[in-house]
Amino acid sequence: MQKKAADECAVTIDEATASRRIVISHIEPQVDDGRYAAKFCVGDTLAVSANVFSDGHVELSVDLEIRPPRGAPTVKIPMRLLGNDRWAADYPLTARGTYSFEIVAWRDDFATWLSDARKRMAARQPMELEFDHVRGLIDSAIENASGSLVEDEFRELAARFAECSTTEERMALLNSTETQRLFRTGGPRAHEAASEHALPLIVERRRAGFGAWYELMPRSLSRVDGQHGTFDDVIAHLPYVRDMGFDVLYFPPIHPIGKTHRKGRNNSLVAEKGDPGSPYAIGSQDGGHDAIHPELGDFADFKRLVTAAREAGLEIALDFAIQCSPDHPWIKAHPEWFKWRSDGSIRFAENPPKKYEDIVNVEFYGAAFPGVWLALRDVVLFWIEQGVKIFRVDNPHTKPFPFWQWLISEVHAHDPDVIFLSEAFTRPNIMQHLAKIGFTQSYSYFTWRNTKEELTTYLTELTTGPSAAFMRPNFFVNTPDINPYYLQTGGRAAFQVRLILAASLGTNYGIYSGFELAEAEALPGREEYSDSEKYQLKKRDWDRPGHIRDDITRINNLRKSSAALHEFKNVTFYNAWNDNILYYGKTTADLRDFLLFAVNLDPKTPQGAHFEVPLWEFGLSDDASIEVDDVVSGQRFTWTGKIQHVYLDPALQPYAIWRLHAPGGRP
Amino acid sequence: MQKKAADECAVTIDEATASRRIVISHIEPQVDDGRYAAKFCVGDTLAVSANVFSDGHVELSVDLEIRPPRGAPTVKIPMRLLGNDRWAADYPLTARGTYSFEIVAWRDDFATWLSDARKRMAARQPMELEFDHVRGLIDSAIENASGSLVEDEFRELAARFAECSTTEERMALLNSTETQRLFRTGGPRAHEAASEHALPLIVERRRAGFGAWYELMPRSLSRVDGQHGTFDDVIAHLPYVRDMGFDVLYFPPIHPIGKTHRKGRNNSLVAEKGDPGSPYAIGSQDGGHDAIHPELGDFADFKRLVTAAREAGLEIALDFAIQCSPDHPWIKAHPEWFKWRSDGSIRFAENPPKKYEDIVNVEFYGAAFPGVWLALRDVVLFWIEQGVKIFRVDNPHTKPFPFWQWLISEVHAHDPDVIFLSEAFTRPNIMQHLAKIGFTQSYSYFTWRNTKEELTTYLTELTTGPSAAFMRPNFFVNTPDINPYYLQTGGRAAFQVRLILAASLGTNYGIYSGFELAEAEALPGREEYSDSEKYQLKKRDWDRPGHIRDDITRINNLRKSSAALHEFKNVTFYNAWNDNILYYGKTTADLRDFLLFAVNLDPKTPQGAHFEVPLWEFGLSDDASIEVDDVVSGQRFTWTGKIQHVYLDPALQPYAIWRLHAPGGRP
Repeated sequence: MQKKAADECAVTIDEATASRRIVISHIEPQVDDGRYAAKFCVGDTLAVSANVFSDGHVELSVDLEIRPPRGAPTVKIPMRLLGNDRWAADYPLTARGTYSFEIVAWRDDFATWLSDARKRMAARQPMELEFDHVRGLIDSAIENASGSLVEDEFRELAARFAECSTTEERMALLNSTETQRLFRTGGPRAHEAASEHALPLIVERRRAGFGAWYELMPRSLSRVDGQHGTFDDVIAHLPYVRDMGFDVLYFPPIHPIGKTHRKGRNNSLVAEKGDPGSPYAIGSQDGGHDAIHPELGDFADFKRLVTAAREAGLEIALDFAIQCSPDHPWIKAHPEWFKWRSDGSIRFAENPPKKYEDIVNVEFYGAAFPGVWLALRDVVLFWIEQGVKIFRVDNPHTKPFPFWQWLISEVHAHDPDVIFLSEAFTRPNIMQHLAKIGFTQSYSYFTWRNTKEELTTYLTELTTGPSAAFMRPNFFVNTPDINPYYLQTGGRAAFQVRLILAASLGTNYGIYSGFELAEAEALPGREEYSDSEKYQLKKRDWDRPGHIRDDITRINNLRKSSAALHEFKNVTFYNAWNDNILYYGKTTADLRDFLLFAVNLDPKTPQGAHFEVPLWEFGLSDDASIEVDDVVSGQRFTWTGKIQHVYLDPALQPYAIWRLHAPGGRP
Repeated sequence: MQKKAADECAVTIDEATASRRIVISHIEPQVDDGRYAAKFCVGDTLAVSANVFSDGHVELSVDLEIRPPRGAPTVKIPMRLLGNDRWAADYPLTARGTYSFEIVAWRDDFATWLSDARKRMAARQPMELEFDHVRGLIDSAIENASGSLVEDEFRELAARFAECSTTEERMALLNSTETQRLFRTGGPRAHEAASEHALPLIVERRRAGFGAWYELMPRSLSRVDGQHGTFDDVIAHLPYVRDMGFDVLYFPPIHPIGKTHRKGRNNSLVAEKGDPGSPYAIGSQDGGHDAIHPELGDFADFKRLVTAAREAGLEIALDFAIQCSPDHPWIKAHPEWFKWRSDGSIRFAENPPKKYEDIVNVEFYGAAFPGVWLALRDVVLFWIEQGVKIFRVDNPHTKPFPFWQWLISEVHAHDPDVIFLSEAFTRPNIMQHLAKIGFTQSYSYFTWRNTKEELTTYLTELTTGPSAAFMRPNFFVNTPDINPYYLQTGGRAAFQVRLILAASLGTNYGIYSGFELAEAEALPGREEYSDSEKYQLKKRDWDRPGHIRDDITRINNLRKSSAALHEFKNVTFYNAWNDNILYYGKTTADLRDFLLFAVNLDPKTPQGAHFEVPLWEFGLSDDASIEVDDVVSGQRFTWTGKIQHVYLDPALQPYAIWRLHAPGGRP
């Protein structure tokens, strides 16, 4: 009844397709199946895992193949079976740049034979026919290796095998590490399969993943009231920032500010004489994005500032805000980069019915393409030449995605050390997409996550959800645009709380100046600062009573010295039986740096809670003792038993930080 | 300082890439990003959703484009925004075969203009320049539609727009459904984007998704003790199976059984005279996979059986077991399909150190390819010709994945109604992969999920996890190979419990004969039946006291009449405060068929529980009343209040089934 002829087969299946018996899937890390790169920093360990399986009962061999940047040779690492078809391997990432990896697997006939043979030997079954079979495998290996270096090795194996005279000798030879290694690395690979495509990784400098940011407006730093601050004033102020232990000093735009429709104080539509205008209205007769606002200084001053900052351990970050004042030189030089209306006027920025008449947006398509793309890229390259390698990007979600993908990749081809922070306070998909297409760091919703439930949920999402592979949040506690209600209403303790949360939960975090002074005066009912520095100079008393510089200095120093705080995904929320107390641990994998944080989220009321000391993480029983440092007071003591109690009075100190010492682990 | 010339751009970005501003991702349903088809049945509704977003603040338009089977014209359905960039559309699946769908999205300039214009109008802003702008959009639409049917429509719109004399008239025209429809369907599509590739669906006949299976061994059905049963005995037995309400009647292999190394009773290595052997040792001098065991009857008898079964509302399912007895005709005819050892003997099936000497496996590669592939496909095609369209496949995970993918697709090209049930009791990845590559249904771990926790977790995984898109479990309560401990030890109530769980939680479920008689005699300490029918004839008293035929008949009839039981993913587990009582609901989306099940999982002890009546599903308050039918007793009554109590005595009836009637919803 075989109704169909065998030659019909050619039509419906070819031998290569028929041979695909191995499935490789669910590879981690990956971002959208390799469409985008997973992000790492130099020094991180890449942990790859995947489902790898085949039909039938055979031994598989699986290799992780890593291609390091810049054409370095491929590295092959055997993967180990974790169970349930999950395979894993680790690899230390030591070079900056773009890596990619693949997974290669094959049905390992020799390993299968060996595994079966051990069972047969144990069951004392006759082995003669099995040895005949393995002799065939050795012959196949010789043939397969023909002409290569391992051919001789297999020939030698065949010769030694022929010399064996007993079953035990034969098994000893075949079971030896040497023989197994020879087959593993040089033997035939039945039904060899590779992952469908290579998965990319980008490995960046460590600052991409770890840094404390301090934001200030240089123009406010004059020590003379009412006088416009200069870069030299910033230089004089550097010790203040340095002493608090920050890593990055970030300035909103420092370019010439437009005069047409300039905004006045508190965002009023008409500026008074002397009002400096919003630094985000970029461009005047003094120049555009590649110029410096004359009152701040000149390029020589700026270079001195960059150098002085570097000497103070601070790296300068600039704002990259793609918008122009109506006075920007590009408008006359490149009218085709802007949108014009039928009456010949330029189209201002607007979000109907709101209008922003001090700002015009550039066009990215039509006659503006590619001119404006190149010009904007060159703005970034220009500031890189001035010594700036960190850019905070204003509202990137209102510019085309492909523009950013292109710009960042162009800049990284020029200098892979450049960091881009995306300020996209928008919907989650868009925030995440910007991270996928290249932004190094992202502003996040942390600024509005205040309760225990909110913080636990959000941190769990960020550290364990899909975005953990590609999005590095930078936890800003405030910005010139955001004066959060929690800070407006919580008093000094609220600032301490948000500081500790941001600096311990976030590897990247930032404050905008005034935060350390517990500044919170707001426009009524809004998240805006009153008398916002965006529209006027602001003189501050940097020693104002009630400042929290001591807390900042302490946590920034702890961040620097504690390896546990250099990792983002290593947070664990533990039980504290009070919804106002957030209690969590950060630890290195080896438990040698184990920090616990308890934070009273209620800035008004003292709160106490019993909490669980995670003795189990050290393999200790619930009634064991453990040595503890109180990181704030420097006191050392011992906790005995899993349940302890903490009492946090916001009037004194709304948080506790402890370091646990593994038994015998104290240096 | 523009250091780079504009013509460098050509090197680094082309206009098409630069134009890709719309992201379409996370499309559901999908299986491994479209590598495999999601599964549906005729009559199902396809619910598509996806993340679709772009940069900036514009209106998007999104279409679902569906390509039905066999070249039917593409259907375009506008998708609606659910929020947070998630878009959705539904489509009824009416034809069998392979569909595919894509998502197409564009930045809708007219919709954006209209949305802004409405806000400007509300804010009483001047509109003249805005109307100039929209006139440009109409002109672009005319140009874009040039030569097509809609060009005239846009020209007419332009003419009517020109005739308008007031702002209100203009807005009324532009805001009209007609104008919006015209732009939506025929307007220009800025930055149009499509999902990366079409995603496939397979739509099968309804039996693929819904059926109650009854498994029996024809040879046991003789009414004369010790005599081999025949197909005619099965015909005589059909009313028994039909009256219980089953849909599918499934036989283990009916082919000639080998004599060499035939297994005896209880799997003994040596058969006694008269022992019939395992039906899975296929092939003798009487023929192989395309022959009938002579003692059962001939092809004419088989045809009569198929016809009689059909008349009884039963569809015959056969076993497809790819293995041969040492006497199979293929071994002589095609020695190249088998594995031979160095001493000239055939290699038996084995799983070292175990040996299965009554079975030899075919090879699939080398000289066996493609001959054995074609032969096996033709076996299936042959039985299709005999009227069989359902195949239960024995141990498919021990044969190559690509073989199954090819065979099933070959068979479906010939007849899309054929159903393949995968008997792969193996690791989850392999079980799932077989479903991905084409198996219609899958045996599952249900057979071993007994506790409330186990059942809730497993059903939640099956109905809401990734496998829900492609795997249709068939909940067998027992098989000739599996006599579960729960049934061995639980007595009659255990059978009732497992029946109700399988038949209500599973749209496809099955029992192996003897289950209805509460048969559970086991080999000591094993999940095997003692005196297993696999190795001997078994005569049963079909009226044995304690049978549960009434329960089976009742639940099978309920399955047929209740639309809620025709869907698999519509289960919700509700609260019942007793870990021994599993309590869940199944409902149609319109709530018109709303069933509740409470099952006492403890077959030994009466259990009571308070439970929550899901009044909230009907929008009722916690103290509302709802009408209820007790499906078993036929009583009607009213529950008042959310918390009710149930008491289930396994000695009487270990389960309750209720139907809730929406207020005013009683027919």
